[in-house]
Amino acid sequence: MIKILYIVPGTLAQSEQGAEELSRRKKILQSHAQKGTIVEIKDLGSGPSSIESAYEEYLSVPGSVERAIQAEKDGYEGIILGCFGDPGLDALREMVRIPVVGPGETAMHIASLLGRKFSIVTVLDSVVPSLKKLARMVGLDKRLASVRAVNIPVLELRQNVEATTSRMREESQKAIDEDSADVIAIGCMSMAFMGVSETMQKSLGIPVVNPALVSLTVLEGLVHADLSQSKKAYPFPTRKA
Amino acid sequence: MIKILYIVPGTLAQSEQGAEELSRRKKILQSHAQKGTIVEIKDLGSGPSSIESAYEEYLSVPGSVERAIQAEKDGYEGIILGCFGDPGLDALREMVRIPVVGPGETAMHIASLLGRKFSIVTVLDSVVPSLKKLARMVGLDKRLASVRAVNIPVLELRQNVEATTSRMREESQKAIDEDSADVIAIGCMSMAFMGVSETMQKSLGIPVVNPALVSLTVLEGLVHADLSQSKKAYPFPTRKA
Amino acid sequence: MIKILYIVPGTLAQSEQGAEELSRRKKILQSHAQKGTIVEIKDLGSGPSSIESAYEEYLSVPGSVERAIQAEKDGYEGIILGCFGDPGLDALREMVRIPVVGPGETAMHIASLLGRKFSIVTVLDSVVPSLKKLARMVGLDKRLASVRAVNIPVLELRQNVEATTSRMREESQKAIDEDSADVIAIGCMSMAFMGVSETMQKSLGIPVVNPALVSLTVLEGLVHADLSQSKKAYPFPTRKA
Amino acid sequence: MIKILYIVPGTLAQSEQGAEELSRRKKILQSHAQKGTIVEIKDLGSGPSSIESAYEEYLSVPGSVERAIQAEKDGYEGIILGCFGDPGLDALREMVRIPVVGPGETAMHIASLLGRKFSIVTVLDSVVPSLKKLARMVGLDKRLASVRAVNIPVLELRQNVEATTSRMREESQKAIDEDSADVIAIGCMSMAFMGVSETMQKSLGIPVVNPALVSLTVLEGLVHADLSQSKKAYPFPTRKA
Amino acid sequence: MIKILYIVPGTLAQSEQGAEELSRRKKILQSHAQKGTIVEIKDLGSGPSSIESAYEEYLSVPGSVERAIQAEKDGYEGIILGCFGDPGLDALREMVRIPVVGPGETAMHIASLLGRKFSIVTVLDSVVPSLKKLARMVGLDKRLASVRAVNIPVLELRQNVEATTSRMREESQKAIDEDSADVIAIGCMSMAFMGVSETMQKSLGIPVVNPALVSLTVLEGLVHADLSQSKKAYPFPTRKA
Amino acid sequence: MIKILYIVPGTLAQSEQGAEELSRRKKILQSHAQKGTIVEIKDLGSGPSSIESAYEEYLSVPGSVERAIQAEKDGYEGIILGCFGDPGLDALREMVRIPVVGPGETAMHIASLLGRKFSIVTVLDSVVPSLKKLARMVGLDKRLASVRAVNIPVLELRQNVEATTSRMREESQKAIDEDSADVIAIGCMSMAFMGVSETMQKSLGIPVVNPALVSLTVLEGLVHADLSQSKKAYPFPTRKA
Repeated sequence: MIKILYIVPGTLAQSEQGAEELSRRKKILQSHAQKGTIVEIKDLGSGPSSIESAYEEYLSVPGSVERAIQAEKDGYEGIILGCFGDPGLDALREMVRIPVVGPGETAMHIASLLGRKFSIVTVLDSVVPSLKKLARMVGLDKRLASVRAVNIPVLELRQNVEATTSRMREESQKAIDEDSADVIAIGCMSMAFMGVSETMQKSLGIPVVNPALVSLTVLEGLVHADLSQSKKAYPFPTRKA
Repeated sequence: MIKILYIVPGTLAQSEQGAEELSRRKKILQSHAQKGTIVEIKDLGSGPSSIESAYEEYLSVPGSVERAIQAEKDGYEGIILGCFGDPGLDALREMVRIPVVGPGETAMHIASLLGRKFSIVTVLDSVVPSLKKLARMVGLDKRLASVRAVNIPVLELRQNVEATTSRMREESQKAIDEDSADVIAIGCMSMAFMGVSETMQKSLGIPVVNPALVSLTVLEGLVHADLSQSKKAYPFPTRKA
Repeated sequence: MIKILYIVPGTLAQSEQGAEELSRRKKILQSHAQKGTIVEIKDLGSGPSSIESAYEEYLSVPGSVERAIQAEKDGYEGIILGCFGDPGLDALREMVRIPVVGPGETAMHIASLLGRKFSIVTVLDSVVPSLKKLARMVGLDKRLASVRAVNIPVLELRQNVEATTSRMREESQKAIDEDSADVIAIGCMSMAFMGVSETMQKSLGIPVVNPALVSLTVLEGLVHADLSQSKKAYPFPTRKA
Repeated sequence: MIKILYIVPGTLAQSEQGAEELSRRKKILQSHAQKGTIVEIKDLGSGPSSIESAYEEYLSVPGSVERAIQAEKDGYEGIILGCFGDPGLDALREMVRIPVVGPGETAMHIASLLGRKFSIVTVLDSVVPSLKKLARMVGLDKRLASVRAVNIPVLELRQNVEATTSRMREESQKAIDEDSADVIAIGCMSMAFMGVSETMQKSLGIPVVNPALVSLTVLEGLVHADLSQSKKAYPFPTRKA
Repeated sequence: MIKILYIVPGTLAQSEQGAEELSRRKKILQSHAQKGTIVEIKDLGSGPSSIESAYEEYLSVPGSVERAIQAEKDGYEGIILGCFGDPGLDALREMVRIPVVGPGETAMHIASLLGRKFSIVTVLDSVVPSLKKLARMVGLDKRLASVRAVNIPVLELRQNVEATTSRMREESQKAIDEDSADVIAIGCMSMAFMGVSETMQKSLGIPVVNPALVSLTVLEGLVHADLSQSKKAYPFPTRKA
Repeated sequence: MIKILYIVPGTLAQSEQGAEELSRRKKILQSHAQKGTIVEIKDLGSGPSSIESAYEEYLSVPGSVERAIQAEKDGYEGIILGCFGDPGLDALREMVRIPVVGPGETAMHIASLLGRKFSIVTVLDSVVPSLKKLARMVGLDKRLASVRAVNIPVLELRQNVEATTSRMREESQKAIDEDSADVIAIGCMSMAFMGVSETMQKSLGIPVVNPALVSLTVLEGLVHADLSQSKKAYPFPTRKA
């Protein structure tokens, strides 16, 4: 029996979608978890309502770190930092011993296992440079075909699921045709929970990586293999007088 | 219930270690598998007795492909190509629809998730260039700190487990001290089944990635998420008259 | 007449060194400024006392952004983000129109103009990976010979200036001899204000880049040339309902 | 007097084109050889009829290695592995002492000597990823402008030479106009023996590298300069009990 | 009081534009200099009338070196090598102790400080490969979005300033729209002195880097900070008997 | 019958070694040429006596270009630019239509065909950065293991051939042992004509590339294959009024 925490690094529960959306996501994760895995989900008490800029990424970090530290104390065995930009991933890894995975990083690795070149389909043009930067940090920029945006703000994605899905498919097809992508990674966690990756995969004819599901599965694997981030790479900050 | 095949790309059963070693490895894999996963293991009817050169890698491929095609027909849902050099991985991915994972590639991705720089500890100096080439193909060469060899041939590794383990620890420690590695990946499948990764991890104080276990867990994850290699990236060869 | 703000992204004034150290740094900066430049310095009301980890970097960002926004309102024409790790530099650039420079990034560019390969001499081993990551982000990792640490915590650097200086010289010499560096960049702002770069430069016989001074001079240059960060690259976050 | 063997890694003589095509290719090579060079050509007794996938590449390797070993015994002084994908080149280099050249690798090096960026014009889209991978292995990916395919299968290339040539010219022109290529390399050995490189070079106005001819000339040069592959890089596999 | 020499590496004064153009440029530089900086300008007694090829770059170097050596003797404290291709920059740095800056290199570094990806707008297609090569030498090729040419020869640029400006704006806009540039660097010194960077910056809405101004300001900064090129990197040639 | 010119980009005939050394080198080249090839050798009327710095490289270019233009008029069909640093290679390629090869570039390509990683053994530490820069320009920096210098000036190399050879062997051995080189390229043309590459190859046990011989053989190959530098890549400079 292992307990995993999915942190939403923002104030989702305070949004219109509210706590309902939080529990909807939890159910999706739980339904994909292995037998014996309990998934919990928590958002932040304060922070950004959505993350579409570097500034909002930074704003979310102190709250995420707090949640992570508490989770470790509460006996959780692993953490998913639920934003595709992986904001503050290195900080969380410094502050706890249990494994922390970021959906952006994880999805890029899994996408690389499935094809030659992957493209990321995300929300807004404003996050494109950050995601390219993330690919460079991860070291997989040579495997990245492109990052394409549907240009619908995070908070409007679910207002018209059909329109969103259609735009995601459109940009994915362009990634295939114009950028030589042979794998698509969904590049936003609100998109990841819209339940569209399976149908997209069928209609596009190439793998579509859902960052929520692969983060869960990779994290479960790490926990079972007794693996966590290297404390040589992510040491605890030294105490100060 | 899913069935997974672990292919040993060589004639292990015909070696002195014999069929016994095959079934020993199967048990180890099965014991780490999720509930509902059945792991089978098969070696090749003909091919190299061990793989320590490019030539032997190539020799193994036709037999591995044959095993993979048959496995798909027999209802297996995923394949692990059981050699750290991933020999013929692209060929297997072309010839079947079910997901095929290579332990070398997979271990490099997982190691990258755990630290900044990983080192590979492998058997002989003669395979070092191939493994560096593999890292370059995967695109993770910037994350690779070094590849170090214990310089004990594959077929002698298990004759003196203690000596082998001690050499592995020695080279790992050098990788940490001299090459700035903060994660170690075990770079040979015969090493992977020696049951030493846990103790190495403890004594070294940094994560030690066992390629057998992470290949299994990633493959299970792919199968559950309905993901397989992109047929745009790995198309079936065209039929010829 | 131009006004420039140097932000110390921490609670320096609340430390033992106190407000005195703040005003000492201000005087140094002012003494190197062009005629017609007024330099002010401000630390944060809350945040880390020193920055030696990714976590502390993140902790400082919200306060730095606040200072930057207020500075723009108050008529400042440029900002130096006074930490060599450039924590939150992209966020600050998003949130204001006036130019923001980071000492780490700036020092790397200037060092590249002076030689073939530069090394960074910094405080602790724990910040080495972050600085290598910064070089990769900037795109100058091929020009970076090494990052070396004196392994004296930030808050102890000034307790024994002679010992610190001697360690800095020692690691710089190793960078020259063992890593082929032909330029040294001082990799910590507390070091930068110790007044040792000139004597180091003389004794080492190669250029020693002081990040405080080159940040000031580059920022003055940008202001005079009417240049600031691209708002296409660093757009304001969109307002949310 | 030196003897060189050109290995066709497939069963060309068993195809419709038959032994005639083999001897036609031999004559072309012989006519371009230096005085004192004798060129022989051999295909494989078994293997793929043409190579248009990774799988077929692997299939050809055991037979090629066999031919190479026998050639060395028979007093040949150099080997051309006659497939642009250089399938098993490292294995051949391991198994013999005489120099082995691959047309793909060689053509990329020569193309780099002639311009800034070269493009490869090849048969099918299915081999494009392999050729890009080859360029990355060789280390010349930064010099590669693009790989473009005429999308005519190998075995149909010679059925309509005019149509094939016209498609090759078409894709070459696109490489020049759209991909900034200033040199073209012909990327398939069946194309290389169609006698079209000279006329293409004239009509395109930029160098067109024929992989058959440059492999021959580079190999002759190696033999005369007493150079062969490094046995440190390509050691013989160790004997096993 | 510091004296700076701007070397025009060609025979500008002997051209139709004559000495007048030289003194016009001097005035522009002087007007942007800090108080206390005296800028002089000198062209060469012999050499190319303009630089639009590698050959002309080389032709200019002996004369530029001569000017630089004399300048150092005459008490100048810094040198700008006034051609965007930085022809012979390393030679000048070898031959004098005072700092020498190249506008191409400097503009690339400053452009990198202002955005994510910069494009260079230059004169002729014939210099595009050289400028890409320069970016690779500098190590900032990953930050370079594109190099685009207006295709008006250097000596005709000022015959129709409006047409030139309009072409520069056109290519800049394409760089933004098609190549994802978020900063523009003017890639020719004759363009740099046309007084168009400010209006271009306004109409394009992104920073436009004027290589003349940023070279001046960076050089002033180096002189004031007592920094010059590393003599370890750029040693004086050894005397010969 | 083809005529090839080897240009010595300096005033070798005016040195103590005099015209005798020139004709000695010519004989060596001629003895390695194909039947039907005539090799001529010419030095410059003025220029550097040896090339050990960037400045001296530039000094040689105008004279080399002049020699190349005259050679083309005189019916030569190919040119070797006889300095390992390839000074002005792009300029020569612009100014003539006949193929021009540089020994540095050519040796790096051939060395890459023979192993995994090559090291260059050259004269002085002062040319090491230039040769690393050359490898980066060529695009083969990832194949370069190291550049090592014997630290004997060019003009003293032949005063004590034994000492020179012994130092070359010493540095080569270090390249093998410490830098993982499996191929050595001799990195200076005066070394190349000392007749030591064969004995070095024997004693080191790995290939030793003589830049003079491989330049000759590659150039002959280009001429016979009717290949020359791309005029799209190296256009003639435009005529000016």
